[in-house]
Amino acid sequence: MPNPQRLRGVLSPAVTPFGSDLSPDPERYLRHCKWLLANGCSGLAVFGTNSEANSLSADERMVLLEQLIQGGVPPEKLMPGTGCCALTDSVRLTSHAVSCGCAGVLMLPPFYYKDVPVEGLYRSFSEVVERVGDSRLRLYLYHIPPVSQVGIPIALIERLLKAYPGTVAGLKDSSGDWNNTRALLEAFAKSDFDVFAGSEVFLLANMRNGGAGCITATGNVAPGPIDALYRAWQSPQADAMHNGIAATRAVFQKYPMISALKAAIAHWGKDPGWCTVRPPLTELNPAQTRALLEELAVRGFDMPGLARA
Amino acid sequence: MPNPQRLRGVLSPAVTPFGSDLSPDPERYLRHCKWLLANGCSGLAVFGTNSEANSLSADERMVLLEQLIQGGVPPEKLMPGTGCCALTDSVRLTSHAVSCGCAGVLMLPPFYYKDVPVEGLYRSFSEVVERVGDSRLRLYLYHIPPVSQVGIPIALIERLLKAYPGTVAGLKDSSGDWNNTRALLEAFAKSDFDVFAGSEVFLLANMRNGGAGCITATGNVAPGPIDALYRAWQSPQADAMHNGIAATRAVFQKYPMISALKAAIAHWGKDPGWCTVRPPLTELNPAQTRALLEELAVRGFDMPGLARA
Repeated sequence: MPNPQRLRGVLSPAVTPFGSDLSPDPERYLRHCKWLLANGCSGLAVFGTNSEANSLSADERMVLLEQLIQGGVPPEKLMPGTGCCALTDSVRLTSHAVSCGCAGVLMLPPFYYKDVPVEGLYRSFSEVVERVGDSRLRLYLYHIPPVSQVGIPIALIERLLKAYPGTVAGLKDSSGDWNNTRALLEAFAKSDFDVFAGSEVFLLANMRNGGAGCITATGNVAPGPIDALYRAWQSPQADAMHNGIAATRAVFQKYPMISALKAAIAHWGKDPGWCTVRPPLTELNPAQTRALLEELAVRGFDMPGLARA
Repeated sequence: MPNPQRLRGVLSPAVTPFGSDLSPDPERYLRHCKWLLANGCSGLAVFGTNSEANSLSADERMVLLEQLIQGGVPPEKLMPGTGCCALTDSVRLTSHAVSCGCAGVLMLPPFYYKDVPVEGLYRSFSEVVERVGDSRLRLYLYHIPPVSQVGIPIALIERLLKAYPGTVAGLKDSSGDWNNTRALLEAFAKSDFDVFAGSEVFLLANMRNGGAGCITATGNVAPGPIDALYRAWQSPQADAMHNGIAATRAVFQKYPMISALKAAIAHWGKDPGWCTVRPPLTELNPAQTRALLEELAVRGFDMPGLARA
């Protein structure tokens, strides 16, 4: 049975807006986050990969999180990313998120050192849990080997669940490999461990096999249609809905994802400043932007209510 | 002609000692750094990969750097690592190192996001140089694709050298690929751009082709013999010396390098606390430690003067 106190459904790793000086823009950020929650997202996995969180310092993340909550975003809807290379940074961000009342944290393994033993990864997560020392912590593991190059093996999850039942709450699988997601569901779906697909492309299959939803980049731009599939996954229309949202995602995937998401938000929000990304990323060039927007327009893509009145 | 104001020779990415609570140990650190400088290292590339620097927060690095200098290590011997995932962290660490009077900084590219364009990498380094805004900055690029998975292509170096001559001072090549080092030397050795090999295995070839020395993990344990080769690279004994230090390195390379370096320092320094590593790394197990120390002893390996009197 789903745990009623846990986030489920469609979560978006909200993209982070920057001013022309590359500093985070709390006003644009708050508006975008509120739009997401009003348009289909059941929660926000702020400070994810697609949030350019790894281009933000720990202090910048903590300030933004506090600004969101002060601006009216309920912390029980938030699952901030808190996994850093440095143990001390991960502990600091996780403690802060818990103290802010966040529903959970989505934690990358330390990702600089490669080919580390499972024992080392276990100690990394274990040290964070022990040092945070707060029974309110809900830890979601973040498996994204295509980017982090350091994954979360099943043997690690087994050890963590045994050591910290109730605290270790789930995982986001951004491997892009359905076989891995299926193996996770088979191993853990009955253990009060919530498996989120890392893309809406796997949302339907994930729900049919006991998953909890998805945490997806394109949740930033198409939260409504993805949420509609989440709600209707048992309906006869589910496969057709799946095909529709997968086709939209395929358009975005032709481009660097983060820059493409921001270009769409800039266009439909009538706010060109949204295009700014922090190095090492670069914004789409004008030809890419035109091609993206044209292809989306042909599909009838829209972000209703995004533009300021 | 070598630039007389630049570090050359053998630099060690000094390993970082931790207490049993995993906090950095400034007293052990200072002693080790002083031993390195007294025993063959011409400089210290503190906060490198082998320093577990990526497991330290920005604040922890800055405190350690200040403690080293206050303890008597001359800043003109120091080339701290300052490249982080977050632009703001890299700027902060680099500004701090310059303000401390360090000879230079060794800068990783932002390494979380993969397959980023050269333009994005250029902006990353350029933003740091511009924001630090200090003519004393000497920037050494850190190319270590086996770990960072994000490298420093030659086209990037060309752009940076053109934009920031005098500031962009060199590169450490830890690709492990001599063809890459050779291409760098051919392109830049005459441009007041100092190429350091990332291992003593390439030190002799690097010197014979116009390089500046090496920055090497095993400089932590064998600075004397490596420095002897650096000083004698034009002598008839150079090849034999090369073979000797390469054989010692090969012993360490059978094990996880950082843990093996610390095990050797713990043994020859008669200080078992040195074995501690931060997660996600793990110390050598007893069987590995025995095998490492036995093989080194057979080779007559020693770290003279390391143990406290």
